[in-house]
Amino acid sequence: MNADARAWAYLSRVAEPPCPELADLVTRVGAREAADRVRRGAVGERLAFHTEARRDIDCAQDDLDAVERLGGRIVTARDDEWPALAFSAFGRSARPRECHPPLVLWVVGEVRLDEVPGRAAAVVGTRAATAYGEHVAADLSAGLAARDVAVVSGGAYGIDGVAHRAALASDGLTVAVLAAGVDVPYPAGHTALLRRIAEEGLVVSEYPPGVRPGRLRFLTRNRLVAALSGATVVVEAGARSGAASTAGWARTLGRTVCAVPGPVTSSVSVGCHRLLRDGNAELVTRAEDVVELVGRMGELAPEEQRPTSPLDGLDEAQRRVYDALPARGARTLDEVAVAAGLPGPRVIGPLAAMEIAGLVTQRDGRWKLVRHR
Amino acid sequence: MNADARAWAYLSRVAEPPCPELADLVTRVGAREAADRVRRGAVGERLAFHTEARRDIDCAQDDLDAVERLGGRIVTARDDEWPALAFSAFGRSARPRECHPPLVLWVVGEVRLDEVPGRAAAVVGTRAATAYGEHVAADLSAGLAARDVAVVSGGAYGIDGVAHRAALASDGLTVAVLAAGVDVPYPAGHTALLRRIAEEGLVVSEYPPGVRPGRLRFLTRNRLVAALSGATVVVEAGARSGAASTAGWARTLGRTVCAVPGPVTSSVSVGCHRLLRDGNAELVTRAEDVVELVGRMGELAPEEQRPTSPLDGLDEAQRRVYDALPARGARTLDEVAVAAGLPGPRVIGPLAAMEIAGLVTQRDGRWKLVRHR
Repeated sequence: MNADARAWAYLSRVAEPPCPELADLVTRVGAREAADRVRRGAVGERLAFHTEARRDIDCAQDDLDAVERLGGRIVTARDDEWPALAFSAFGRSARPRECHPPLVLWVVGEVRLDEVPGRAAAVVGTRAATAYGEHVAADLSAGLAARDVAVVSGGAYGIDGVAHRAALASDGLTVAVLAAGVDVPYPAGHTALLRRIAEEGLVVSEYPPGVRPGRLRFLTRNRLVAALSGATVVVEAGARSGAASTAGWARTLGRTVCAVPGPVTSSVSVGCHRLLRDGNAELVTRAEDVVELVGRMGELAPEEQRPTSPLDGLDEAQRRVYDALPARGARTLDEVAVAAGLPGPRVIGPLAAMEIAGLVTQRDGRWKLVRHR
Repeated sequence: MNADARAWAYLSRVAEPPCPELADLVTRVGAREAADRVRRGAVGERLAFHTEARRDIDCAQDDLDAVERLGGRIVTARDDEWPALAFSAFGRSARPRECHPPLVLWVVGEVRLDEVPGRAAAVVGTRAATAYGEHVAADLSAGLAARDVAVVSGGAYGIDGVAHRAALASDGLTVAVLAAGVDVPYPAGHTALLRRIAEEGLVVSEYPPGVRPGRLRFLTRNRLVAALSGATVVVEAGARSGAASTAGWARTLGRTVCAVPGPVTSSVSVGCHRLLRDGNAELVTRAEDVVELVGRMGELAPEEQRPTSPLDGLDEAQRRVYDALPARGARTLDEVAVAAGLPGPRVIGPLAAMEIAGLVTQRDGRWKLVRHR
C-alpha cells in the first residue's frame, strides 16, 4: 500500500501535469509498474521526452510525509473519494494536451473530495478587484454557502480571497485549488486564509509538495476549478484575465458559465461584459440565480419582486379614463369623456369601478384622482 | 391645400391615436372626406365609438396656427418627408391596436423627418438616473453624435435629457418625441432644452398642440421613439420602466435592442440586466458598438484594444522554460530543464530564442529573467 502511494507520488512529480502519455501508461500497467518503467527509462519516445529531466528525482516518501504532516493525503482514481464523474467531462472534449484529468490530487481537509462537485460553484475573478467586485463576490459566496453550495476558487488575492472568506464566514464549504504544492502558501499574504480553508474546507492541488506556482500552472489549475464546479461565476475580470481562462474551461467541460455585469466604466468588468456579449455566459446578479444553475433538478430561483402599481389591474377603458383625470383638480363626466376620447356613457362604468377600488373619487359630479401616499 | 391641412389637423385630434379605424377610412376616402364623415357621424360603429366624444370639437385652424407660430408643421403620409420606410415595420407585426403608425406628426425643426431613421439610435432610460447612468448616457450620445448618428429620445428627466444635451453639445442631431403637444413643454423643467432641440434638431409628436401628456400617451409615444431609430439603447431602467416598453417596441418592429450593464447593486440597472439575461438585448458598452448595429452596411466597430504581453508570441516550450526561471535569482541549464520538466537539450533552443527577444539573459552559464519596467 505504501509502495503504491510512493509510486503515485513519484509519478505526480516526474512529468509536468497533465501528461496524457503518463496517464495512459498508468492505466495500462498500474502505478507501480509505470513508476518502475519511467525510472528505468523503459518507456516510449514521447513519454521519455516528458520524464527525462526528472526521472532520477525520487522524493516520493518525503512528499507523502510532508502532506501527512499537514493532515492531508494523496488521492487517485483508485480511491473512493476520487471525483470520477466530475472528471469524466474531460473525455468528452476534443482533448488538446491540457484537457486531461489530473493523475493525482494532493488534498488537505476533512471533507471527501467527491462530495464537492455535485453542489459547487466556482467564484473567480481578478486580483485587482474593485470595492464593487469584492462586495458582489462576498454577497454571492455568502448566498451560495447559505444554500449549501460549496464555493470553489483559486486562493488568489482579490475576488478569489473574498469568495473563500465569505463562504467561511457563513460556515459554508469552500475549496481552494492551488497552482502550487498544498504546503506552499501562495500568495504568501494568504497563508492564514489557506490554513483556515484546509481546516474547514479543502485545499487541493495536482502538484506535489514544494512546487512553486508558475504562469502556465495557473492556467492548468483553472481547468480543475472549473471541473470541480457545476457552474463558474466570473465576478470581475479584465480584458486579459485568468478568470476568462477558467470560464473557457467551464465551457469546454460542459459546465455553466456565469458572469456578473458591472459598470461599463470599470476596466475589470470588461472581461465579464465580453463573455456576456459573445453569448458565452449567463448574466447573474444574485446567489439564487447561480443556485438555479448548479442546483439539483427543480431548484428554481424565486422571481425577483417587481414593484406593483394600483393601476395594474385596470382594463384599457379604465386606464384611458384614469389618464383623462388631471393631476390636480377635478373634471366633469363630459370633460373626462372628451379627454379620454371615449363616448360619455362609456366612462361611467370605468369611473364607478375605480371609485370602488379607491383610485378616483367624485364630489358634486366632478371627478378627481385619489392621491396615494 | 389649407383645407387639406385643416382636415388632417381635425383628424389628429378627433380620436385618441393610434386609431386604426380612422386610418383605414382616411386611406379609403382621403383626409377631407374622412373629416367630413366623422364630423357628421356618418361612420361605422367602431369609428363612431372612438370619435363620438370629440367630433364636435374643431380647433384645426387654431392648431395649425399654433404650430406655425413655433415654426413647425404638420406632416402626413402625403408629404415627401413622411418616414414611410421606418413606419412600414408596423405592418409586419401581429398588430394589436397600439401597433399602428401615426396618422399625422406635428414637427418643429428644420431637419427633414425622413432623414432621421436611416441613421439614428434611441438612447432611453429612467428618470431616476444615477451619476453612472448619466455619465454613460452622455458618453454614448456624444459618441453617436460624433459618428453622425442622430440621438432620439423622449425629452424626459434623467437619461433622456442627458442624451439630448450631450448630442447637442457635440453638434449632433437630436430628436425629441413627445407624449404631449409640441407646444406643451413637458416636463416644465425642460422648457429651455426642448426649445433648443426644436431649434437645432427636431421636436415631434402625434398629439395636436395643447394636448397634455398622460400615462398611456407615454407608452404610445414610445413606439415612435423605437420606430424612428435603427437601434434602441436602454442605459438605465428599473424593474418597471418606460424604457423597457420602448425596448419592447423596438423588438416588435424588428429594430435592434441594446442594453448597458451596470452594477448589480443598482436598482436602476435591473431592467437592463433583465433584458440581457432574457436574451432580449445586445450588451453594449461604447458608442462604437451601437454604431455597428445601426450603421450602414459594413460599418464595424473597431476591436477593443486588449493589453498585450511580451509572452504572447512564445511557443509552448518557450513558455514552459520561461515559467521555469525564478522570479528572483538565476538557474543553470540543468535546473531550468528540471523545473520545466523538459530534457536538457530541449531548453537550449527556447532560452536562446528568448535571449534574442530580450526576455531572458545569461551570465556565467546561469539564466535569469529580464525585468521589464
